[in-house]
Amino acid sequence: MINTDSTLHIEKVTSTRVGEVDFDNLVFGKTFTDHMFECEYKNGAWQRPTIKPYGPMLVYPGMKVFHYGQAVFEGMKAYKDENDDVFLFRPEQNLERINKSSKRMAIPEFPKEIFLEALNELVRLDKDWIQKGDGNSLYIRPFAIATEVGVSASPSKEYKFMILLSPVQAYYKGFVKVLIAEKYSRSADGGVGAAKAAGNYGAQFYPTSLAQEKGFQQIIWTDSNEHKYLEEAGTMNVFFRINDTLITAPTSDRILDGITRKSILDLAKHNGVNVDVRKLTVSELIAAAEDGSLKEIFGAGTAAVVSFISHFGFKDKIYELKEQSDSFAVMFKKQLNDIQYNISEDPFGWRKKVELF
Amino acid sequence: MINTDSTLHIEKVTSTRVGEVDFDNLVFGKTFTDHMFECEYKNGAWQRPTIKPYGPMLVYPGMKVFHYGQAVFEGMKAYKDENDDVFLFRPEQNLERINKSSKRMAIPEFPKEIFLEALNELVRLDKDWIQKGDGNSLYIRPFAIATEVGVSASPSKEYKFMILLSPVQAYYKGFVKVLIAEKYSRSADGGVGAAKAAGNYGAQFYPTSLAQEKGFQQIIWTDSNEHKYLEEAGTMNVFFRINDTLITAPTSDRILDGITRKSILDLAKHNGVNVDVRKLTVSELIAAAEDGSLKEIFGAGTAAVVSFISHFGFKDKIYELKEQSDSFAVMFKKQLNDIQYNISEDPFGWRKKVELF
Ligand SMILES: Cc1ncc(COP(=O)(O)O)c(C=O)c1O
Ligand SMILES: Cc1ncc(COP(=O)(O)O)c(C=O)c1O
Repeated sequence: MINTDSTLHIEKVTSTRVGEVDFDNLVFGKTFTDHMFECEYKNGAWQRPTIKPYGPMLVYPGMKVFHYGQAVFEGMKAYKDENDDVFLFRPEQNLERINKSSKRMAIPEFPKEIFLEALNELVRLDKDWIQKGDGNSLYIRPFAIATEVGVSASPSKEYKFMILLSPVQAYYKGFVKVLIAEKYSRSADGGVGAAKAAGNYGAQFYPTSLAQEKGFQQIIWTDSNEHKYLEEAGTMNVFFRINDTLITAPTSDRILDGITRKSILDLAKHNGVNVDVRKLTVSELIAAAEDGSLKEIFGAGTAAVVSFISHFGFKDKIYELKEQSDSFAVMFKKQLNDIQYNISEDPFGWRKKVELF
Repeated sequence: MINTDSTLHIEKVTSTRVGEVDFDNLVFGKTFTDHMFECEYKNGAWQRPTIKPYGPMLVYPGMKVFHYGQAVFEGMKAYKDENDDVFLFRPEQNLERINKSSKRMAIPEFPKEIFLEALNELVRLDKDWIQKGDGNSLYIRPFAIATEVGVSASPSKEYKFMILLSPVQAYYKGFVKVLIAEKYSRSADGGVGAAKAAGNYGAQFYPTSLAQEKGFQQIIWTDSNEHKYLEEAGTMNVFFRINDTLITAPTSDRILDGITRKSILDLAKHNGVNVDVRKLTVSELIAAAEDGSLKEIFGAGTAAVVSFISHFGFKDKIYELKEQSDSFAVMFKKQLNDIQYNISEDPFGWRKKVELF
C-alpha cells in the first residue's frame, strides 16, 4: 500500500559537516551523516519518501513506540574500494528481513523499490563520509517505529520508516570472551527472537552487564527451556569448529537469520569445509573443549563481521581457545572482507554497486 | 543517585484545555491533561524533576529507545469520590514495580519521594480532568525511556522518566472472549515477562490480531515451553473459578505481578473464598469446562479492573461460561471499585488521598 506520491523527495543540507569528523576516533553508532531518510505511514499508506538533513524531530511522549516497543530495525553497511566506488552487501536481504520483522511486530511492510532507491540515493549523497581501508565502512540503520499517540496496548496506525547513516571503524577489536547463559534468556519459542524487534536488545542489557562484571564481553544465549542448546550472541550468530567441522545452530523462532551467517555457510561450502547446521549442546561443547577437538568459536554479524572468541565461560569455569594457524574465522573474515571491499571476485553476486553519479 | 536540585519545578499552562474535552466519548489513552511530569537522567544522576505543559518534545532519531526498546512503564489510576476528593490506589506498588522493571531493563531506578510528590502534584494540578461516576478515572502512565543517541546495542547513559495523565472511562465494555495460546508466546523463562518492559507489549500485537480475526479480543498466554500452563492475558492476570475455588497462576519470571491480582487475592481471603495459587493446566481447564465445574474466568488489571470472560477458545473449539448469580468477578469488581472510589471502608489501607490544596 503506497500512496500515489511515491517519488523520492530530496532536501539537501546547505553545507556538509563531514570536515568536522575525526574518522580515526569514531565511537560506533555515535556520528551521523548529513542526511537521513524518512517515510511516514498513515491513513493506511506509506506517504512521500523523503531524504532530508539529519536532525531532531518533534514527537509526543504518548507515541506508542515509547510504551509498547513496537519497533524493528536493520543493520547493514556500505564499503568503499580503492577507486572510490561504493558497494552494499546483499541489501535486498535486509529489506526482506525488516519486512519479516515488521510482520511479526504488526508493522506494515515497506516497499522494496522505495527502500532500494532511498538507500542508493542516501549513500550517494553522503558518499564522502565513507572512509576507505580495512574495517572502515558506513553503517546503515534502517528502522521503523510506531508513532501514533495513544497509551493503550494495541498496534499503532501510524509509523515512521527511517534510515540513518553512521561512519564506523571495526566494531569489536581483538578477541572476545563470552559467557554461556544458564539463567537468563533472550527469547522464547513462539516469541519475537527471530525478528530484529527493538525490545529483544534492551532485554539483553542487564544480563550482559552482569556478564561484563565477570569479565566477559558477550553472552552466548541458550534455549530458554533447558539452557541446553547453544543459540546465538547479542548481535551475532555463533559458529563452532570441532575438529574440521563447522557447526552452527539452525535458525528458528528464537534465532535471527543472520546474513553474515548465511554468507559464511555459503563460503564454507565454496571452500570445501564440512558444515553441520545442527543444535549443539553445551555439554558437547565442554567435552570438545576438554578433549581438544574444539578448535574455534566465532561470532558472525554485520557490525563485527567475524569476531574471534578467545575464551568462553560456563558455570564458573573458563575455557581458553588457542589461536589456529589455519583458522576458519580468519579465512572467512578475509574472504567476506575481500568481497565487501571489491578486492576479490564475487562468485555469489552479493556485492551491489551504488550508483554514485 | 539524585542530583542536588531535586526540588520539583512547576511550570503551569496559561489556560486549561479541559473545557474542550468530550468526557462521554473518550478513547482510552488518547486524551492527555494539561500537564506532564519529566525528569532527565544524565551524568549518572536524575536531574531536576519538572512538571510542565503537556506537549511534544524534540528528540533524535538515533535515540536508543527507538532501536533497542529500552523502556518500561506503569499503569495506575486516580479516582474521584462524590465530595471531589481524589484517591490513588496503592501507588507505592507501582513505583516499586517500575523500579523492578527498570532494573531488569538496565534503567536506573527512580527515587520514591520524587515519584510520590510528582504524582500528587500532577494529579492536584489536573484534578478537574477527573470525572466522578462508575468507571470514570484518570489513567496515570509513568514511563522511562532511553534517550541517549547511539545505534549500538548497549545500555543508554541517558533517560527520561515521565508521567502522563489521561482521563478514561471503563476500558473493556461487556464480556470478553479469549483464545488460549497454542503457538505464539509472550515471554520466556529468564526473560523480561515479569517486567513491564515496552517490548513485551508490541510483541503481542501480531498474535493478538490473529486471535481478533477469529473473533476473540484477547489471548490467554500459556508457558512457552509446552503451552500447557495458563499464565496471563495481554494486560491482565487471569483468575479461574472451579466450583468454589479461585485459582490463579503464581507469579514468575514470565508473569507480571499484578496489583489488581494481589488485591483480589487479599479480598478473596477477606471474603472467606478458597484460594489456590497454582499452575493450572489447559487440560484441567477443558475438563472443568466440560464437566461443568468451571464457573468463571476473569481478567484482573488496572485498566479494566475486572474483565468478565464469557467464552474461551482452544483448538477450534469454543467454550461458553454461564453468568453466575453469585459471581466472584462481580463481587471483587464491586469491592475494589468501592474501595477505589471511597464508597466503602478500606480495611487494607490501599487508598491514598491526594492532597488537593
Ligand atoms: C540477534 C542477532 N543475531 C545475529 C545477527 C547477525 O546478523 P547479520 O549477519 O545479518 O548482521 C544480528 C544482527 O546484527 C542480531 O541482531
Ligand atoms: C502483562 C500484564 N499482566 C497483568 C497486568 C495487571 O497488573 P495491574 O493489576 O498491576 O494493573 C498488567 C498491567 O496492567 C500487565 O501488563
